[in-house]
Amino acid sequence: MDNKNIMSYETVYLNEEEGTIVILDQTKLPNEVKFLHLKEQKDMWQAIYLLQVRGAPAIGVFAAFALYLLAKNIKAETWEDFYKPLHEAKKYLNSSRPTAVNLSWALNRIEQLAIDNRNKSIPEIKALLLKESKKIKAEDIWMCRQIGENGLTLLKDGDGILTHCNAGQLATSKYGTALAPIHLGLERGMNFRVFCNETRPLLQGVRLSAFELIADGVDTTIICDNMASQVMKNGWVNVVFVGCDRVVANGDVCNKIGTSGVAILAKYYGIPFYVLGPTSTIDMSIEKGEDIIIEQRPPEEITDMWYKQRMAPQGVKVYNPAFDFVDHELITGIVTEYGIARPPYIKSLKEIFNKKVEA
Amino acid sequence: MDNKNIMSYETVYLNEEEGTIVILDQTKLPNEVKFLHLKEQKDMWQAIYLLQVRGAPAIGVFAAFALYLLAKNIKAETWEDFYKPLHEAKKYLNSSRPTAVNLSWALNRIEQLAIDNRNKSIPEIKALLLKESKKIKAEDIWMCRQIGENGLTLLKDGDGILTHCNAGQLATSKYGTALAPIHLGLERGMNFRVFCNETRPLLQGVRLSAFELIADGVDTTIICDNMASQVMKNGWVNVVFVGCDRVVANGDVCNKIGTSGVAILAKYYGIPFYVLGPTSTIDMSIEKGEDIIIEQRPPEEITDMWYKQRMAPQGVKVYNPAFDFVDHELITGIVTEYGIARPPYIKSLKEIFNKKVEA
Repeated sequence: MDNKNIMSYETVYLNEEEGTIVILDQTKLPNEVKFLHLKEQKDMWQAIYLLQVRGAPAIGVFAAFALYLLAKNIKAETWEDFYKPLHEAKKYLNSSRPTAVNLSWALNRIEQLAIDNRNKSIPEIKALLLKESKKIKAEDIWMCRQIGENGLTLLKDGDGILTHCNAGQLATSKYGTALAPIHLGLERGMNFRVFCNETRPLLQGVRLSAFELIADGVDTTIICDNMASQVMKNGWVNVVFVGCDRVVANGDVCNKIGTSGVAILAKYYGIPFYVLGPTSTIDMSIEKGEDIIIEQRPPEEITDMWYKQRMAPQGVKVYNPAFDFVDHELITGIVTEYGIARPPYIKSLKEIFNKKVEA
Repeated sequence: MDNKNIMSYETVYLNEEEGTIVILDQTKLPNEVKFLHLKEQKDMWQAIYLLQVRGAPAIGVFAAFALYLLAKNIKAETWEDFYKPLHEAKKYLNSSRPTAVNLSWALNRIEQLAIDNRNKSIPEIKALLLKESKKIKAEDIWMCRQIGENGLTLLKDGDGILTHCNAGQLATSKYGTALAPIHLGLERGMNFRVFCNETRPLLQGVRLSAFELIADGVDTTIICDNMASQVMKNGWVNVVFVGCDRVVANGDVCNKIGTSGVAILAKYYGIPFYVLGPTSTIDMSIEKGEDIIIEQRPPEEITDMWYKQRMAPQGVKVYNPAFDFVDHELITGIVTEYGIARPPYIKSLKEIFNKKVEA
């Protein structure tokens, strides 16, 4: 099946004419492509809570648009009458996923702008909030595009790329992080052959990465996680690209469970292994990977979820860590919007930060 | 939940009083423990065809009992009247899974014994067939027990063991191959902590290995295949035990897809990696792993099987190899019923064969 001419889908955008935020409902993927046009506060809250919109950058952009739309509909003559419902709306949206950093970060940014401009007229403030919410999306796209540009220097036309989980445009406004070089290369007429680890237990590789790559017309092959070794042995993989949840000072990388195994295989087969992510995920206050406690998730994700019936015997123990750590010695480079850090990371990550401060 | 006192289940046995073969229906595991008591030729054929009994050694034992029972029920006075229906029954059973080597091997062995003893009385021949079918099972148990004995020399009480797929007693008459040292150690009052890779896409680790270990009271933990790296990093694995589908002359080992990845991880973390299997799986006529073509299986096993609904986007390619090869340099030792072969395998596998010939 040739999908080459299918347009890629936009994850989240503002429909100003309608007065809605439009999102691609990710809970329905990959079986149904359904866009939700959201206008009511309750539906916006649910969209985050139910993971209809997911991925830290995408949630941030969504929250900014949401708070702008709710502010726009406030009928008020005075600052006090405007600010009170705005603040209530912000608190309400923020309660949808309390631990999502980008959510509160974006909401605070919109609210703060309103506060900083309290002396302006209400229509002027509303116009500023619209501009700011669009800016948050533009910044996200810029960040992803820069990661894509930097990552693209590592690829040549026709390369085979293996990826794990979904660090794609479904988690951001556009391009994604680990998948950004692929989407960007496609725009420029390049072609790649991508292998998606299915990524048990939540199957983000099959459900999301494969979906967005197919939508863009990329030659996409799914494999079970345990087939990556054979795919590499076959000589089909020129490079591994993965995202990251956190990068620490020595270059150790926390990412979706299974990433460390992929890194070890890549080392064994002599395949370059790159981590792609924004500088906002670099945490210089933490020295090394072992210092972070790994979240354990419910056993049912492995034994029951997705299945017609339970697949494990009663009484069995289940180990279900959400993340693992990749030792920095296994990482060829860390691709950010401000350049590619290479070993030794203690030095190169600091240099990346300096570039960011200068920018 | 403490299963310590649950008796382990027998995979296949003859119930002489009933005149039936009894098998544990493996298509119902792990949710239902159901024993089938089979008497009719058609039901025996179906049991093999539907994988109610599975695993090469278990199928061989089952087929021998099946042909004996069918022979026993032949009402004949002369050799000719006895042999014709015996031969028909053999051909019929043999058609249930044409590529299963142990199936035709066991059936031929029973038929040949009847032919070799054609001058004896029918009751005498029937008695000989009963004895032979029991001998086939006894030989299988002996082989597994010896693999268990040899493997047990590699373990100490309390060890953490990681295994992939199911090379357990559900695939043999008793003990299994890779899991034989664990079952045998349990009989002797030892305790182990076993990690079962779930083994996508067919989930033999979760459905079968975890089931038979829990039934024996073993401390058993299931993990997704991509979690093996983290489990090893945690220091929980003292040794890896896996089965084998074929061992070739240089020591390369063909086994369930994912085995090569586990071997590479074990090497990286400095954990001994052992392959356990009978000498019948060693094929000295093949020089190295790359010389064997790997069976590709249907995409639906990855995209649809087990699930409530399809989990992959339409149009995606699927790579689904059934097996992979472990390079001999990654293997600490190959445990057989005649001893443990160690590198260099070109030499040690020949020595194992010499021991077999002498025995």
